Amino acid sequence: MINYPDGRKVNWHSNKVAAGNRGMDLEKEINITNQFYLAQDTAVIHKKPTPVQVVSVSYPKRSAARITEAYYKVPSTTDYNGIYRGKYLDFEAKECAERASFPFKSLHPHQLTHLEAVQRHGGIAFLIVRFTSRGVTFLADAGEVIQFYRTADRSSIPFDWFAEHGHPIGGDYLRPVDYLKTVDRIYFTKGGNAL
Amino acid sequence: MINYPDGRKVNWHSNKVAAGNRGMDLEKEINITNQFYLAQDTAVIHKKPTPVQVVSVSYPKRSAARITEAYYKVPSTTDYNGIYRGKYLDFEAKECAERASFPFKSLHPHQLTHLEAVQRHGGIAFLIVRFTSRGVTFLADAGEVIQFYRTADRSSIPFDWFAEHGHPIGGDYLRPVDYLKTVDRIYFTKGGNAL
Repeated sequence: MINYPDGRKVNWHSNKVAAGNRGMDLEKEINITNQFYLAQDTAVIHKKPTPVQVVSVSYPKRSAARITEAYYKVPSTTDYNGIYRGKYLDFEAKECAERASFPFKSLHPHQLTHLEAVQRHGGIAFLIVRFTSRGVTFLADAGEVIQFYRTADRSSIPFDWFAEHGHPIGGDYLRPVDYLKTVDRIYFTKGGNAL
Repeated sequence: MINYPDGRKVNWHSNKVAAGNRGMDLEKEINITNQFYLAQDTAVIHKKPTPVQVVSVSYPKRSAARITEAYYKVPSTTDYNGIYRGKYLDFEAKECAERASFPFKSLHPHQLTHLEAVQRHGGIAFLIVRFTSRGVTFLADAGEVIQFYRTADRSSIPFDWFAEHGHPIGGDYLRPVDYLKTVDRIYFTKGGNAL
């Protein structure tokens, strides 16, 4: 069982999908949430565009340049960054279809290096991981994930690790993944992780 | 004449191109500089990928997904952001071929809105503008640029405005556009702009 900050209790082993987690995918929900934060002037956080290697472009007369050959590139950083309460904030978001664990191969090693560098420079860095089949979404501090990555002799993070070290993220219609509420609790509360 | 922080004096009206500003374009030089900052663990600042709207992708057997139709999108923010000395930092970089002034049409209005929001949330926000024909590169605080944009009845910023309100950026082989040195002086020195 988990105690959500709003008092809800969700059974880990339930198949029920929490409200706000139905239908839409994680990226879309985070984008909606970020738009809401931006509109409310709560934070300025954006998804970075997916990096593409453009090979050839045609310039049709009287219309926009058309890319005719391009390939997806490996991103050099994480997907999201921005500023919140005066702090630099940086995170990667991943959906996980497996029930038992989150495989490290979902992340590029240089993304962990990047998140670590962000923390070293005084920023807030974390992962958002959604276990889709369980309908729960966690925020996990990058430093703790990296420590596990370095010390555990495993190729994945067990779900139970998230249940213990992660922080559940709630949401509503306007903020489907209200992660800043979780950030407040973890990074901006007395007794929360040091910044 | 301008006094560079390293003691060099450059004549505004000279056609000579300053060392480090020859050949390479501004974006490439900033990327090299950012790589150096990253390698030295001075800062974590990256260029965001150019946003592309993918329309169609083919999946050839045994090879990478190939984008066969895509278009460039208008970026929703600026090109560069990251963290330096614990602060969120955000900027846009532009080359200007005109000698007399920098046209506002080089910027999207929402980029100015974005830089303004960054400052409101406690971040460092500025423009880097290079007058290519003069071989000088300036850092201009976003707040000052926006104030000029709102109050001056002009469609461009005169070069003389940059000479007065801008801050020249020096550089060397390893850091062709050493803008953090300028950032130190403006934002992290007693008597510099308030953060």
